[in-house]
Amino acid sequence: MLVLVAAGTSALRLTLPITLAIAGLLVVLVVSYCQVIAVHPDGGGAYAVGKKDLGATVSLLAAASLVVDYVLTVAVSLAAGAARLASAFPSLTHHMLAMCLIGLALITAVNLWGIAESARVLMLPLVVFLSAIFGVIVVGLVRSHPAAVVGSAQPVHISEALGAIVILKAFAAGCSALTGIEAIANAVPTFREPRARQAQRTELMLGALLGAMLIGLSVLIHREHVAPRGGVTVLAQLTAGSFSTGWAYYATNIAVTLVLALAANTSFGGLPVLMSLLSTDDRLPHLFCLRAERPVYRYGVLTLAVLATVLLIAVNAVTERLIPLYAIGVFIGFTISQSGLVRHWYGRRSPRWAVRAALNGTGAVLTATAAAVFVASKFTSGAWMVVLTVPALMLLFSRIQSYYRAVGLELDLGRLPNRPLPAKSLVIVPVGSISKLTEHALHAALSLGEDVIAVSVHPEAKQSAAFRTQWDHWNPGVRLDTLDSPHRSLVHPIVEYVRQAQQGHRQVAVLIPEVQPRRWRYRILQNQRGLLLATVLRASTDVVVCTIPYRLNTR
Amino acid sequence: MLVLVAAGTSALRLTLPITLAIAGLLVVLVVSYCQVIAVHPDGGGAYAVGKKDLGATVSLLAAASLVVDYVLTVAVSLAAGAARLASAFPSLTHHMLAMCLIGLALITAVNLWGIAESARVLMLPLVVFLSAIFGVIVVGLVRSHPAAVVGSAQPVHISEALGAIVILKAFAAGCSALTGIEAIANAVPTFREPRARQAQRTELMLGALLGAMLIGLSVLIHREHVAPRGGVTVLAQLTAGSFSTGWAYYATNIAVTLVLALAANTSFGGLPVLMSLLSTDDRLPHLFCLRAERPVYRYGVLTLAVLATVLLIAVNAVTERLIPLYAIGVFIGFTISQSGLVRHWYGRRSPRWAVRAALNGTGAVLTATAAAVFVASKFTSGAWMVVLTVPALMLLFSRIQSYYRAVGLELDLGRLPNRPLPAKSLVIVPVGSISKLTEHALHAALSLGEDVIAVSVHPEAKQSAAFRTQWDHWNPGVRLDTLDSPHRSLVHPIVEYVRQAQQGHRQVAVLIPEVQPRRWRYRILQNQRGLLLATVLRASTDVVVCTIPYRLNTR
Repeated sequence: MLVLVAAGTSALRLTLPITLAIAGLLVVLVVSYCQVIAVHPDGGGAYAVGKKDLGATVSLLAAASLVVDYVLTVAVSLAAGAARLASAFPSLTHHMLAMCLIGLALITAVNLWGIAESARVLMLPLVVFLSAIFGVIVVGLVRSHPAAVVGSAQPVHISEALGAIVILKAFAAGCSALTGIEAIANAVPTFREPRARQAQRTELMLGALLGAMLIGLSVLIHREHVAPRGGVTVLAQLTAGSFSTGWAYYATNIAVTLVLALAANTSFGGLPVLMSLLSTDDRLPHLFCLRAERPVYRYGVLTLAVLATVLLIAVNAVTERLIPLYAIGVFIGFTISQSGLVRHWYGRRSPRWAVRAALNGTGAVLTATAAAVFVASKFTSGAWMVVLTVPALMLLFSRIQSYYRAVGLELDLGRLPNRPLPAKSLVIVPVGSISKLTEHALHAALSLGEDVIAVSVHPEAKQSAAFRTQWDHWNPGVRLDTLDSPHRSLVHPIVEYVRQAQQGHRQVAVLIPEVQPRRWRYRILQNQRGLLLATVLRASTDVVVCTIPYRLNTR
Repeated sequence: MLVLVAAGTSALRLTLPITLAIAGLLVVLVVSYCQVIAVHPDGGGAYAVGKKDLGATVSLLAAASLVVDYVLTVAVSLAAGAARLASAFPSLTHHMLAMCLIGLALITAVNLWGIAESARVLMLPLVVFLSAIFGVIVVGLVRSHPAAVVGSAQPVHISEALGAIVILKAFAAGCSALTGIEAIANAVPTFREPRARQAQRTELMLGALLGAMLIGLSVLIHREHVAPRGGVTVLAQLTAGSFSTGWAYYATNIAVTLVLALAANTSFGGLPVLMSLLSTDDRLPHLFCLRAERPVYRYGVLTLAVLATVLLIAVNAVTERLIPLYAIGVFIGFTISQSGLVRHWYGRRSPRWAVRAALNGTGAVLTATAAAVFVASKFTSGAWMVVLTVPALMLLFSRIQSYYRAVGLELDLGRLPNRPLPAKSLVIVPVGSISKLTEHALHAALSLGEDVIAVSVHPEAKQSAAFRTQWDHWNPGVRLDTLDSPHRSLVHPIVEYVRQAQQGHRQVAVLIPEVQPRRWRYRILQNQRGLLLATVLRASTDVVVCTIPYRLNTR
């Protein structure tokens, strides 16, 4: 709306017809996304459609623009939420970035905990929000004049430029209201069974609600001639106009803030799933497929949180700087989904394919136009970032894919390798003292290896001799080799020794005992030497590196 | 000097006598530190003296105050260096913190690279600095009036309060010029052989140079009636007075900045050595003893860098806020060293012990007075931080020591344990596909274990059956167990399986193959699953966890 109003009052009367046009597009999109869900019940939205129906390059484009879009969704929603909260509580105006980062940390924590729980946590504010917004619309339309006016009468900079570009801009800006729709198609797997039906129903409901809200608010703006004022959002002005500035005003503001947090949360539902799909396709590190105790893609969640933090700091949490970037990613995704479906229907030639293809074709043309307009009109004010990031991500995905392909070839994946044969084995145990820990390690080593050698490192020959005497006194039945290290480095003599032991055709293993304290905070006090040794051995030799825990009872 | 001048012009005439008193103290300290070096050729300064001659608690106090002092030295030197650079280039005035952090990063990098190299890198600026300062003094004394005046004539806030406290304050503040002396005694082991002689010679030379500089500059200040001016340091004013504002002025400023960086560097020579001594005494995690490829205590260097960064950010790189904190730590250390030596001479009753004890006794009384004055006069403006941190560190050291003592008892350190006996062994190999990697892992497993079982995890029974068919077709001579994981978690079914395998009285090992790419940047693309599995196994079972690398040739 800001775009329209900034273009001058003469443009304001365009609000209502443009809103109706947007609502029309909304209908086309909701219907066609229902088709996306039907065709791709495994989720992935634009990426899945692109991969199946439009080939590798387009699917990479879709994936890249979706990643950008998800990150921007988080940033935009949080920045808008902070602005909204600052409308209600003006003292927060100078802490927008801090508010965004706190919100981001909370959402990240909730999502690391688990997606099912997070949906439950955020259900209540959604209900409050919907009641509040429809309350604002109904009360506002019933009232003869606004109940209260908030914000300073600080004039917003009015540009006199008008014409086709402004109208298209307003059209594209309004369209960004639609982008909530996309998230559902990308996150189908997180729905309950029957997944596809549930997701479609949610999609339709969301579309209907969004459309009604959009039209209602736009009629209200038109009737009350609302213009932007300093320090408050347009929606806050409408709320004050309907409910005055009592408790209902604050409740509505808080509900809107929470729902914007919910919008940020949709990305946390979507991006980790998309990243796991990309990593199954070898286009992202396999690490994004990993789930440990909880059914959560932790690495995806953390990556999203880090990227959103960087972005929020870069734009200093100013919503207006993010919106154009945001819309470009969204509309590229829309366009790809729609084009993919046109191709899909065309390929299938199922009954009524022409109607369906026409519907999706219209969607594709409309969204492609919006994307082009955004890139052209906002290039210097940030769109260049998207224009650079999307191809960079596509390149990254394809480089990763070619890496995994080369590794697969080298490992002879798919062909049967030779039968593995056993060899003689030697287990080397670095020891520092004679204790229960040494006994524990030698027990394991004797069980695993045909030959076992204990190795100790001492700064001087005198200490070596003393340790050997002690060892012979204990007489554990294991050979001891002592190494001198005048520079007091413990790791290098052992690595050198292991390298020499590897010369024969034996399987060499190094067994490193580790003291495991019961309490987490004592961890840093133990095993750092073993960890360093294991790391250096892994990096510079081909031996088997084994660790065995010795659990403490008292600490 | 700022303290004196801030107290009013009438205090300014005290500069010269106080400087002479400080120079006297300098003599006492230099001589007594030469004694410290002779008595404790292994370095450690106040900590070593305290430990040997004054008991556990005093040595903890010494260690804690030294740690605080080293961290403060880095912060003070860098902040002063940044202020000096800003004197020469006023456009830098608003980037003091950034300059400090960049300098800190550089020094840290140099020290991670190696101490010997770092001493060489910083030798040149020291020579330039000494020439420049003595140049300033000589030229300044020869000239009849200042060549140029720099800085804005902005009046510095003049307090009218005068009296004993101000004089004592000025005395203590001036003493902080002495603190470079301490660093050498703490870092003896880094000198070339004959270590003690080399260190003593350096100590004497440093003392003589410092004394001459202190007296010379103070005479100059007195003669030219220099008072603090806005935006420049007193030393910068003296430099401008002697050299005017041409190239010599800039060269001197840059040399001073570099020498202040060298001063920060002394801490990087000292604290890691002290921390390694503390960790040999079980008072810090043993990790601080570790040296890998280079003879550098990396963890000590990194700890110092992190602490100095936090401190610089906390005080926003303002030198004046750091100086009082700094001096307290220094003087506690001085006092302990001196008292320890008094005790040492008293215990030995060697020839001339009374003279030596009197010398160190005087030093102890003087420095104890200075420490007390600082704590009392600067308590509210930051000294409370030192007053809290020092006991907190002492508590930490003694807690760590009691942890290691308890662990030593539990491990029966010092007593001979039972003879280790071999047991039957079972090696479990998690497999995901059939490839050269699988062959490599099974080869190692067959060499190490009497029994070997391969385990694979699949989301559905259909996939399990398909994999089993493939396995039987390969027929590697190893039993395959397939596990179902409907939730697509790979780690938990394996951990559960391993736990059950452990029920018997066999030594169970899990062997995890790892693909090792040749290039470092490909690391993130591999092995994350294995890493997660190894971590969970180490945390929740007692089995031996083995990893075996498979090195790629192409990537």
